Order: sequence, then structure tokens, then C-alpha cells
Amino acid sequence: MNTYTHTVHYYETDKMKITHHSNYIRFMEEARVDFLAQTGYGFDKLEEDGIVSPVMSVTCDYKHTTTFPDKIEIEVSVVKCSALKLIFGYTMRVESQIVATATSSHCFLDSKGKFVSLEATYPELFKMLQEMASSNAK
Amino acid sequence: MNTYTHTVHYYETDKMKITHHSNYIRFMEEARVDFLAQTGYGFDKLEEDGIVSPVMSVTCDYKHTTTFPDKIEIEVSVVKCSALKLIFGYTMRVESQIVATATSSHCFLDSKGKFVSLEATYPELFKMLQEMASSNAK
Amino acid sequence: MNTYTHTVHYYETDKMKITHHSNYIRFMEEARVDFLAQTGYGFDKLEEDGIVSPVMSVTCDYKHTTTFPDKIEIEVSVVKCSALKLIFGYTMRVESQIVATATSSHCFLDSKGKFVSLEATYPELFKMLQEMASSNAK
Amino acid sequence: MNTYTHTVHYYETDKMKITHHSNYIRFMEEARVDFLAQTGYGFDKLEEDGIVSPVMSVTCDYKHTTTFPDKIEIEVSVVKCSALKLIFGYTMRVESQIVATATSSHCFLDSKGKFVSLEATYPELFKMLQEMASSNAK
Repeated sequence: MNTYTHTVHYYETDKMKITHHSNYIRFMEEARVDFLAQTGYGFDKLEEDGIVSPVMSVTCDYKHTTTFPDKIEIEVSVVKCSALKLIFGYTMRVESQIVATATSSHCFLDSKGKFVSLEATYPELFKMLQEMASSNAK
Repeated sequence: MNTYTHTVHYYETDKMKITHHSNYIRFMEEARVDFLAQTGYGFDKLEEDGIVSPVMSVTCDYKHTTTFPDKIEIEVSVVKCSALKLIFGYTMRVESQIVATATSSHCFLDSKGKFVSLEATYPELFKMLQEMASSNAK
Repeated sequence: MNTYTHTVHYYETDKMKITHHSNYIRFMEEARVDFLAQTGYGFDKLEEDGIVSPVMSVTCDYKHTTTFPDKIEIEVSVVKCSALKLIFGYTMRVESQIVATATSSHCFLDSKGKFVSLEATYPELFKMLQEMASSNAK
Repeated sequence: MNTYTHTVHYYETDKMKITHHSNYIRFMEEARVDFLAQTGYGFDKLEEDGIVSPVMSVTCDYKHTTTFPDKIEIEVSVVKCSALKLIFGYTMRVESQIVATATSSHCFLDSKGKFVSLEATYPELFKMLQEMASSNAK
């Protein structure tokens, strides 16, 4: 999978002259959207199928500050993939230096807000994510 | 009508150490939401009735910079009110000094995206806004 | 200490019709700023003294969705307070239902970016926070 | 000059399921930053030289809604360039349909906040922008 690059915008900085920490949560979403599109199961497809994937939790560890106009390269990995829960990991780098590491966990809901099994609904995607999770664990 | 106060948040500043200019467009929305709630025709009621009021245009003139944690007092006025178009004016002050003046124009659409006449749908609101517009013009 | 209330703005929602998850990280900052102001050691005072307090990490668990115009009541607690690290906890409620719990950890830096001991610089604040942390642990 | 493309992010949509109108003001900044970088006088260079270019005013006319994950192509033009004031125009398109037109006006300040003449400070940039403005006026 290709990494995703976010170039920090001026409006994403704050008066400490650095990228405001809340924005990394948004960069994670951008990278996740790009990652899923690469699997062939993009947000568009999921939404067409009436499936939404809300965020259940996030964590982010800030290692080094970044600022406008840094190019943050984001590597997405699958930390865990079970029928009802998917956890992504994120490693963010600027010129090969790690600036932040993060995770986000997700579930899948149908249009009525009921839990959907990723395994049953998208068996191929599920298998792909599980393989990524296990190769990642090694 | 009461003015609306927005206290500038740290995350709304940028590396110039001032409130990022794009945020004033958001403060205008906050003030507009508060203004409509005061008329008794809040966003909640409109959405319940299946009516949305998209923004057709905005203008904003920045007079003085603001920053965290300034309290921006926003006065909303009705610049123009016709059956299909509503224009709001905004005067933003910090400690009585004008920091920005702005306008936003709006139309009203039903759930199918068709234009709705404010005069026909909410005659009382329409009358109230027209009176504000004419007293404002004096 | 008083809790902090954030009213969800229209622009903080997303096309899932809920408050976008990244915004809770911003609400945490708002509540933290308010909390520190209540201790008498607000961001203003710290910045006057040339001290900045960057965020080292955040976590947020989303329990229930919120949306415009929900009033989110945020209770801030001190999870841990050592000389070099301060961890805040956040409990967010809408009408007494918990919608999210979160943490953020912080250090203190002088104008040259060197670590500053909270205990040495602000002994009274340090004592206050430590007492809060220990009463919180009970 | 090359046009700039902004792909609408999920977090830039609102509960009307469209790109929130305030974000276009940010897209304008992105396109302007890219435009200036193409002239060889990027924000980086200006800031190195101790010059900041605050926004004096903005206007934006919304023609068609956009949403995630539309690709908005932004064409920047020079509407006016005098010694003390620079006005940019923006035409935003999705698949060749105009979705918004906008303007922003700017001045140039030194590190003490005093007005700087663009003509005196950057004569080559000034000449380039003036030629763009006059060819644009034809």
C-alpha cells in the first residue's frame, strides 16, 4: 500500500507556530480514506452500501512538532481486525523522522445503526485486513 | 435582539499569532444561529420542517486582528429580506472596537432542493425580518 | 471547579449528521483552558511567563454520538501530576449521559524549548494539581 | 500558472451533507500559497524576509454545492495589484462546472506591523503580478 502525504496548511498552525495537535486526528482520517480506497472498499462504496464506519476511539502520541508547509508522510497499518472491530495504526514522518504515532478503532453500522459483521459483509476485505494485521504483528 | 459573544479559542489562532481569517465565517454562523433562535425560528425548527437555508455568498472585511482569548461581540442585522433572499449583516467588536464587518446571503430550500418562499412559509418571521431590514435602513 | 459547556456548532458536524470526532480534541482544549483559568494559572499567565505547554498525547473514547446543537458538559480532572508531566482526564456528558471520555498529557517548556519543572516554577499550582490527582485516585 | 486541486475531506462536510461554506475560504488560502510558490515568492520566503501578508477582506459566491470526495480545481488570478494592495480572484470548478467564485485582498506588513510597498520590496514580483492583472482585465 502507498503512504499518504499531507502538506500542512497555514490554517492548520496555531499561535505556538506549530501544527495544532487536533489536526493530526484529521490527517489520520485522510490517510484512512486513502488506504480504504486502495483496498477497493472506499468510503464511497461503503456509503453506497448503506454502511457507515464511525470512530470508536483514537489515540495520538506527538513526538516532534511540525508546521507549515511540512509534508507529513503517513503510513497506515492494520493493528487488529475482528468481525466487529477494526484498529488502524498510523506512523507519521517528516523527512523520515517520526513526528507522531496514532491509532483509531472502528466498527461498522448499517443504515439503522445496527452492528454489521465486516467478515460477513465484505469477506474479501476482511481477509485482506486480517492478513495485514497478522503480517504486521510479526 | 441580544448580541452573540464568541471567545476566541487557542485552536482558532494561526502562526501569525492571530485568529485565522477563515474562522470569522464560522463565528458569523454561530451568531446567525443564535439570532434565528431568538426570533423563535431556529435551525432546529427549520430542519424539523424540512427546510434548509444554504449560504449563497459571504463577504468579510477585517479591520483589526483578534487573538486568543479575545471576546468578540457580534451584532447581527437584517440588511435585506425578500421572498427568496435574506441578507444578514454582522458587526464584530472587541471591547467596543470594530474588528470586522461582514454579510451573508441565504435562500430557503425544501427537502427536494426547490426554492421556498420565506413569505409564504413563515409569514410572521418574514414580517419580523422585513421590519428589521427597514428600521436598519433608516 | 466548575464544568465547562461546549454547545456543538453546525460547522462541527459532518455528513454522518454527527459531531465530527476530531472536534472533541478541540473541546478538550477549551475545557482545559477554562480549568487552568479557574486555578489562577491561565494560558495567558503562562505565556506571559514565557512558558508553553504542548500536548504530548491524547486519547478519546467515543461512547455516544452528539450533534448540533447539543450542549456537551465537560468535567476536567487531574489524572497525574509529576514535576515534568501533567495528565488531564475529561468526562463529557449530554444531559447526564456520558458521550465521551478522554485524556491529554502535557509538559512545560520555556521559550528556548527546554523542559521546565512545574513543581519548581509554580509550586502552588503544582500542589493544587497534586491534591486534585490524589483525591481523584481515591 | 498551474491550477490547484483540493480534494474535499470527510471532515470538511456538514450535516447538510455538503462541504461547509467556511472551508472554501481555507481552500482559497491553499491555492494562494501554491500560486505564490509558483511565482518564486512563497510564504516561506516572505516570512524569512520578515514580511507577512494578512488578509484584508474576502468574498465568496457559492454556485453549486460540493461534497466529499469531490476534486475542486482552483484557478487563481490577479484582479488588482497596486503598491499597497493585492487582490486575488478564484474560480473553483468540479469537472469543469463552476462551484464558487471568490476574491481576497491583501496588504504587506513588516515585522513591526508597518505597511510595506510590494513595488519597492519585490519589484520583480510586483511587475509579474501587474502584468497578470492587466492581461486578466482584457
